[in-house]
Amino acid sequence: MNRQLHLNLFVFGRGHHEGAWRHPLAPSTSLTDVEHYQALAAMAEKGLLDSLFLADVLAVGDTQGHSPITPLEPITLLAALSATTRHIGLIGTASTTYMEPFNLARQFAALDHLSRGRIGWNIVTSWVNGVEANFGHDHQPPHAERYARAFEFMEVVKGLWDTWADDAVLDDRSAGQYLQPERIAALNHRGAHFQVRGPLNIPASPQRHPVLFQAGSSADGQRFAAQYAEAVFTAQPDLPTAQAFYRSLKQQVHEVGRQPHELLVLPGLSAVVAESDQQAGQLLEELNALTALETGLARLSARFGGHDFSRLPLDLPLSVDDLPNPDGVQAAQSRARVVVELVRSQRPTLRQLLTRLAGARGHYTLAGTPEQIADAMQTWFQNGAADGFNLMPPIMPAMLATFIDEVIPLLQQRGLFRTAYQQHTLRQRYGLARPASRFFG
Amino acid sequence: MNRQLHLNLFVFGRGHHEGAWRHPLAPSTSLTDVEHYQALAAMAEKGLLDSLFLADVLAVGDTQGHSPITPLEPITLLAALSATTRHIGLIGTASTTYMEPFNLARQFAALDHLSRGRIGWNIVTSWVNGVEANFGHDHQPPHAERYARAFEFMEVVKGLWDTWADDAVLDDRSAGQYLQPERIAALNHRGAHFQVRGPLNIPASPQRHPVLFQAGSSADGQRFAAQYAEAVFTAQPDLPTAQAFYRSLKQQVHEVGRQPHELLVLPGLSAVVAESDQQAGQLLEELNALTALETGLARLSARFGGHDFSRLPLDLPLSVDDLPNPDGVQAAQSRARVVVELVRSQRPTLRQLLTRLAGARGHYTLAGTPEQIADAMQTWFQNGAADGFNLMPPIMPAMLATFIDEVIPLLQQRGLFRTAYQQHTLRQRYGLARPASRFFG
Ligand SMILES: Cc1cc2nc3c(=O)[nH]c(=O)nc-3n(C[C@H](O)[C@H](O)[C@H](O)COP(=O)(O)O)c2cc1C
Ligand SMILES: Cc1cc2nc3c(=O)[nH]c(=O)nc-3n(C[C@H](O)[C@H](O)[C@H](O)COP(=O)(O)O)c2cc1C
Repeated sequence: MNRQLHLNLFVFGRGHHEGAWRHPLAPSTSLTDVEHYQALAAMAEKGLLDSLFLADVLAVGDTQGHSPITPLEPITLLAALSATTRHIGLIGTASTTYMEPFNLARQFAALDHLSRGRIGWNIVTSWVNGVEANFGHDHQPPHAERYARAFEFMEVVKGLWDTWADDAVLDDRSAGQYLQPERIAALNHRGAHFQVRGPLNIPASPQRHPVLFQAGSSADGQRFAAQYAEAVFTAQPDLPTAQAFYRSLKQQVHEVGRQPHELLVLPGLSAVVAESDQQAGQLLEELNALTALETGLARLSARFGGHDFSRLPLDLPLSVDDLPNPDGVQAAQSRARVVVELVRSQRPTLRQLLTRLAGARGHYTLAGTPEQIADAMQTWFQNGAADGFNLMPPIMPAMLATFIDEVIPLLQQRGLFRTAYQQHTLRQRYGLARPASRFFG
Repeated sequence: MNRQLHLNLFVFGRGHHEGAWRHPLAPSTSLTDVEHYQALAAMAEKGLLDSLFLADVLAVGDTQGHSPITPLEPITLLAALSATTRHIGLIGTASTTYMEPFNLARQFAALDHLSRGRIGWNIVTSWVNGVEANFGHDHQPPHAERYARAFEFMEVVKGLWDTWADDAVLDDRSAGQYLQPERIAALNHRGAHFQVRGPLNIPASPQRHPVLFQAGSSADGQRFAAQYAEAVFTAQPDLPTAQAFYRSLKQQVHEVGRQPHELLVLPGLSAVVAESDQQAGQLLEELNALTALETGLARLSARFGGHDFSRLPLDLPLSVDDLPNPDGVQAAQSRARVVVELVRSQRPTLRQLLTRLAGARGHYTLAGTPEQIADAMQTWFQNGAADGFNLMPPIMPAMLATFIDEVIPLLQQRGLFRTAYQQHTLRQRYGLARPASRFFG
């Protein structure tokens, strides 16, 4: 069979455009109401998407209140969605910096059981300033230290997931033997950050390890991805940049001794789909008119670890010198770098930059007809820029519905997307092997 | 309306009797299959029970493998069950010793949103030896230290749940104001164990605080319950002991300035229900024949923090001197004391003791006709021993089904139990007020 696109839905409030929550096309369901997410999941499953994904931040972000915060909590929400869906993969973000590896390994294994093998974990090191104060720290641990902990964290959780052989649960009623103790191993991890004896207190799950996603794109982030990730979410503003990132990351995967297809690259795609170019442009303008300057400035500032941009003129072209050097940013280096590259290549004014970021925070944005969207996706997919996309509908569910009704059929006609769900687990759908246990093979 | 019984289902593998998993009446569904729990929850809801409860231990307990371990994980399992039930309360165990208060407060608030106000938290300090090694400790923190941390933990999580006023989410589309920042407070907790700035990153949930359950019965455990718990699960072997416990705990509640009805006492009840006394006795014998001596000895040892009982004669009456002093037990003092009291009052042989504990680990056990069971419940309820019961069917779902079909109608005829669900939240059902925010009233 031909190589086909992998499509993930990035679930995000009422849509990825900063103005979405106010737009007439957005639903009025409360964002703490599980029905909002159940409806999105059901729609994504109807559209045969590979998976859906929930982001996460461990603090209230925007304290000015001009836009929604991340409500609810990914692990519990995915568990609830596992009960109302049957096929779609369920990917949740969780932090290696502020969780205990034993608790995280266990909850993800439990999710994998609950969903019968449909779980993915988006591994983050938590970049937002202020999170640390909710966990007893006076300062955010530096970027390099967060990644050092993340590397060891992965050794612990992967090890814990390996502690049960697949046949450890015997459940032999007549012999009175429920477990085979010799098929359950201790981990006995003793490292710089963690001492964890194990075994995990839950049997091996259908996928053994959840599918490992990652979205950090700094040098450390890419090194981490090359080592551990099986798929990466990434923000790429245009085709050449995306091609360079794709090539470089696959090369790094190769260098650590893995096969390039063992790591899928999924750039974000935020598409305003409409019958005509003109209508698409009109929708985008409506959305832009609903954004707030303060929110844009606060978010830009957060990307650069708190730098103040409010004194810059709004309507003069920016230069790279107006921005702090991203190498010094301890929060999210790659999120800062996306902005620097945008400014270098396009010289927008501050106002234009904020509008651009309001669209989908620096991800690839498009407004056009279904054909135009499908063409762009095909081009990226067939020219070394993407193995699929992280779909970021500007308004949800409305623009997800249009995408599914109008764009998916075109991709199917071109043989680029499945016409029915086939594989059972998320790993199988993404073409990834089920890991063997390091203790039992 | 008359005071009515509160009935909670203690979900536990294939039943509370140690031999249950092997009995022909037990289902063969795997214990990691969510359908087992969905079926139990649906049955309990059909029976109009107040709530169901999941216990938890943060390590693989019995490593000899002669009986099932606690599979899955309470927080994720309750989230999944919230999607397939509508009325029943959902209570999960989580540890104050091995979780971060921010993460725990957040996941329980999320569960309360997902379930529309049906969540309870069984607060434990984790008593099983071996758990500590999964969280970087060489030794289990002493009993008193675990409770000291638990007291501070409660101040933090209750404070976090109070950080959002009920009207903090404005969601005003036309004004472009999603939050009212002045209706969200920082916590700024700085104590001996925790520094947590807050606010929590999730809006106030339907119940604001989950209903707080607790099950420690040591002196510290009771002091903790009197201060914080809204309901306690407890193991009481007989009526006089249960009456004394009930009286003493309500008195302690009074002494800290709370109303006695603000803490409900729910002793465990493990009933073999059958058409005749004789059939009930027969079932119990079948179950006893399916237990393993090694498992019983290992569990007894765990209660006493690892003491070795295997050299004691099996068939001579025990005396209290054969047992370690429970005051010195750092694991679960009250679980050790239950055994000491049993030995003091009944002088069983070791074999008889193990059989007794195999029934329901020291909880009140009964075998008889529906009338006999209903009579006993009524006696405890109307004579100062219980505000309801923690139902522990020896085999599940079979003996839960019998209880619901045969005993519940009798209780309803006597006006002791509801005939339909009325209240919306679990708090309302238990007659407990919704806490006001300490910051916003
Ligand atoms: C599509 C996408 C989604 C992301 N989601 C999250 C998230 O949910 N939570 C988070 O803390 N970081 C998130 N990030 C940020 C990164 O995962 C990463 O933690 C951050 O960029 C810092 O690492 P870096 O400096 O290596 O980029 C996301 C990034 C991308 C591109
Ligand atoms: C019905 C019941 C259920 C319990 N469930 C748990 C549990 O799930 N996890 C746990 O660690 N302890 C559990 N316990 C033990 C107590 O909550 C408590 O942590 C333990 O007894 C130690 O405290 P203590 O010494 O004050 O009794 C339970 C006790 C009872 C009576």
